[in-house]
Amino acid sequence: MAWFRNLIQVSAIRALIKPRNTHPPLSLYTSLTHFSTDPTTHQTPPTNPIQYSGLPPTKSNEKPRVVVLGSGWAGCRLMKGIDTEIYDVVCVSPRNHMVFTPLLASTCVGTLEFRSVAEPIGRIQPAISRAPGSYFFLAHSTGLDTDNHVVDCRTVTDEANTLDPWNFKISYDKLIIALGAQALTFGIRGVTENAIFLREVSHAQEIRRKLLLNLMLSDVPGISEEEKRRLLHCVVVGGGPTGVEFSGELSDFIIRDVHQRYAHVKDYIHVTLIEANEILSSFDDRLRRYATKQLTKSGVHLVRGIVKDVQPQKIILNDGTEVPYGLLVWSTGVGPSPFVKSLELPKSPEGRIGVDEWLRVPSAQDVFSIGDCSGFLESTGRPTLPALAQVAEREGKYLANLLNKIGKAGGGRANTAKDMELGDPFVYKHLGSMATIGRYKALVDLRQSKEGKGLSMAGFVSWFIWRSAYLTRVISWRNRFYVAINWATTFVFGRDISRI
Amino acid sequence: MAWFRNLIQVSAIRALIKPRNTHPPLSLYTSLTHFSTDPTTHQTPPTNPIQYSGLPPTKSNEKPRVVVLGSGWAGCRLMKGIDTEIYDVVCVSPRNHMVFTPLLASTCVGTLEFRSVAEPIGRIQPAISRAPGSYFFLAHSTGLDTDNHVVDCRTVTDEANTLDPWNFKISYDKLIIALGAQALTFGIRGVTENAIFLREVSHAQEIRRKLLLNLMLSDVPGISEEEKRRLLHCVVVGGGPTGVEFSGELSDFIIRDVHQRYAHVKDYIHVTLIEANEILSSFDDRLRRYATKQLTKSGVHLVRGIVKDVQPQKIILNDGTEVPYGLLVWSTGVGPSPFVKSLELPKSPEGRIGVDEWLRVPSAQDVFSIGDCSGFLESTGRPTLPALAQVAEREGKYLANLLNKIGKAGGGRANTAKDMELGDPFVYKHLGSMATIGRYKALVDLRQSKEGKGLSMAGFVSWFIWRSAYLTRVISWRNRFYVAINWATTFVFGRDISRI
Repeated sequence: MAWFRNLIQVSAIRALIKPRNTHPPLSLYTSLTHFSTDPTTHQTPPTNPIQYSGLPPTKSNEKPRVVVLGSGWAGCRLMKGIDTEIYDVVCVSPRNHMVFTPLLASTCVGTLEFRSVAEPIGRIQPAISRAPGSYFFLAHSTGLDTDNHVVDCRTVTDEANTLDPWNFKISYDKLIIALGAQALTFGIRGVTENAIFLREVSHAQEIRRKLLLNLMLSDVPGISEEEKRRLLHCVVVGGGPTGVEFSGELSDFIIRDVHQRYAHVKDYIHVTLIEANEILSSFDDRLRRYATKQLTKSGVHLVRGIVKDVQPQKIILNDGTEVPYGLLVWSTGVGPSPFVKSLELPKSPEGRIGVDEWLRVPSAQDVFSIGDCSGFLESTGRPTLPALAQVAEREGKYLANLLNKIGKAGGGRANTAKDMELGDPFVYKHLGSMATIGRYKALVDLRQSKEGKGLSMAGFVSWFIWRSAYLTRVISWRNRFYVAINWATTFVFGRDISRI
Repeated sequence: MAWFRNLIQVSAIRALIKPRNTHPPLSLYTSLTHFSTDPTTHQTPPTNPIQYSGLPPTKSNEKPRVVVLGSGWAGCRLMKGIDTEIYDVVCVSPRNHMVFTPLLASTCVGTLEFRSVAEPIGRIQPAISRAPGSYFFLAHSTGLDTDNHVVDCRTVTDEANTLDPWNFKISYDKLIIALGAQALTFGIRGVTENAIFLREVSHAQEIRRKLLLNLMLSDVPGISEEEKRRLLHCVVVGGGPTGVEFSGELSDFIIRDVHQRYAHVKDYIHVTLIEANEILSSFDDRLRRYATKQLTKSGVHLVRGIVKDVQPQKIILNDGTEVPYGLLVWSTGVGPSPFVKSLELPKSPEGRIGVDEWLRVPSAQDVFSIGDCSGFLESTGRPTLPALAQVAEREGKYLANLLNKIGKAGGGRANTAKDMELGDPFVYKHLGSMATIGRYKALVDLRQSKEGKGLSMAGFVSWFIWRSAYLTRVISWRNRFYVAINWATTFVFGRDISRI
């Protein structure tokens, strides 16, 4: 009892544990700051209280506030480059990490661990977790008032059954919209319900769990030959780099690991890649032919076809062909998300947020947009850049420098940089494309454009370049270390097949 | 188009892709083998077909079949030791891996990765994935017919929306029931709904996700001081080794990582450990006092109390005290699962499956039981052994040797070992207990019983012993390597805080 007597005096515990009946009702929506501009503040219905709290406009004794919506390549590269001596940084995103997307396909089959490709934002920009005026908010952006320099947000609480989501507002001095894009389904019925995309760590986890589940289920007595074949038919729709890399990883997994660890069902598993046009259309012809040959050799069935309908157990193609599947991965490019579409901002010809050469949204003071959600306005005469990590990263880096420059020149605060000379506009220089195709082979295309001239190569050396290039681009030393360790252990011990 | 023309000839693809309208209806429940003993086979209602397929009794040209129910310490150690020259091994379990439970608490806060503590069964006993007559089935055991030597099973398909679970039967020559136990809730209302146990990798994942969610939510504007304090109040109920180790890990995480990476909310997070009696009751008095002092020093509030009711946001103790919480981990010991209770087999005084000195279930020919689900029959005059990994592992090892011996003597087949001389009965020798309490401190109690004499020590050296001992006991070299790497990176870079 000694320990208990000693402890009962700890004062902190008193604050936590209250005697019955003196416990005041929890007021979940107590506001820190009410916005006088918000008319709903005092009209809260009791059942669904919508009171707004948030971060008010910065005062003159505070640093100007850069608000970043999104935590992808563009937003994270920007946050990394922001000078936190000049600005406070606030990030609003439904996920607290950046995904190293080029390596995501490798995590689906256990070549890499999930955590090796996820980088917490607090590591990318440490001020977010330490500086008094910098924050990360786990929330969706729900609205934007460019006149008043305010963003509406709603917390992500989906898994906490003890807490309802609530709304809050953030005033910004500079706003960077870097919300990325979402997978395109072309309005094909059943895609969202039945297919898995490959854009987030949770997607890769879902693919892995389903693949391993199907491998195990197909071995259980009572399953027909046909059903076994269906369960183990992995169909990938979309022949871009993601679809091709995933198909390659999958065939590697089958050749090396399934044959050894699921020997009973190894002859039933197949991979089919369906593409409406040509696979890897952005790559050199020679590389494309090489990839086609190599994928076929590894057992990937390449099918040219257009998907018409997706049902729970089969796809229907345009020509009426039925393709039964057990796992369906959808990777046919990306387009603007509903929130981006809903924003009343100028748009690029593709429906992205329209920006000028300095990545500004011209009609809205202090608003910028980078990454897959943005595109050049038609008036700039520039083509919209492809939705690539490379583009997003370069834009983030450029904009961080631009904002630092603006801040140093005293234009950090809202509405103070209107007529400032911004210097060189953003110019994108393509460094080349890479894709791995399995079996220690990859493609490296160093031409600056589809029509341009330059080095392009394929094979083991390319694969080695592919691995080295990505390894050096992984953001933190911790993850660089883990990716290298993962690759080494996969090489020595094979892939991990535990389904957790 | 060249690649497409080449590929269209691949014959395998024909088997997968069928032209419309020639596709026969999928007959999911086609049986491989019908059991003549099963009267329901031909009375299947069309809406919910219950046809049974499965593995029939072994024939004389096949190896005798050992069926293992469960994939915990006991079952896995047994499978590892079984001589696959003599037996085929079939494992039935809802998870395809073993969990290295002593290190599970460390995964909740990112000290270790989840995969480092999960060992796929195919690695523990490779024959399971390769030998023609050995299998792993992802399924629950649902019934047992000891007269006919048959186990009923039902597949686990919870996450596959394209497939309904189905039933099948497995005939055994030897059956080993190693189903473990389930967390005790003592009938307290709300525990199952609101608390998280700490027994599976999925539990640790849930704890981690919730902890990180609460840390992030508590930083979002609009949350009251009181609510913030509640969200960040981590309550652990149960002061056994699991509860203490988890509290220790949590306080380490708070001291080292939360203070650095969640600086805004660091003063709101607290850990309370509630125990009805004394913490670590199986340990030496001196060690217990040491643990109490160390935990208190690390900021863990030790509270003696009995939980009466668990509500979504607060616990009510017996004396009426209300304890608001954001995360509730429940670890108050284990008891028999409903399936074990339902089995019509002799039971030990604690309600576990009763076994004799050779771990046999006396009334059922060829049935054995090991691990937390089994206990000595009263008639043996032996006390029931504690529900420890150590006990389960020793039983698995003993039984593997016993079965190998029986098999070598020609008694492997069902009903052939009735009067066989079994040799030495199982004797458990306690090797000592260990528990880490955070801050590089651990307890090591090498006494053979609570009353016995022997070495007991606490502190850094113990912590070092704790780590080394577990590291050497991790089953595969792969995971041994990963645990060491995880520890090293946590030491250098801090814990991982990405919420994926």
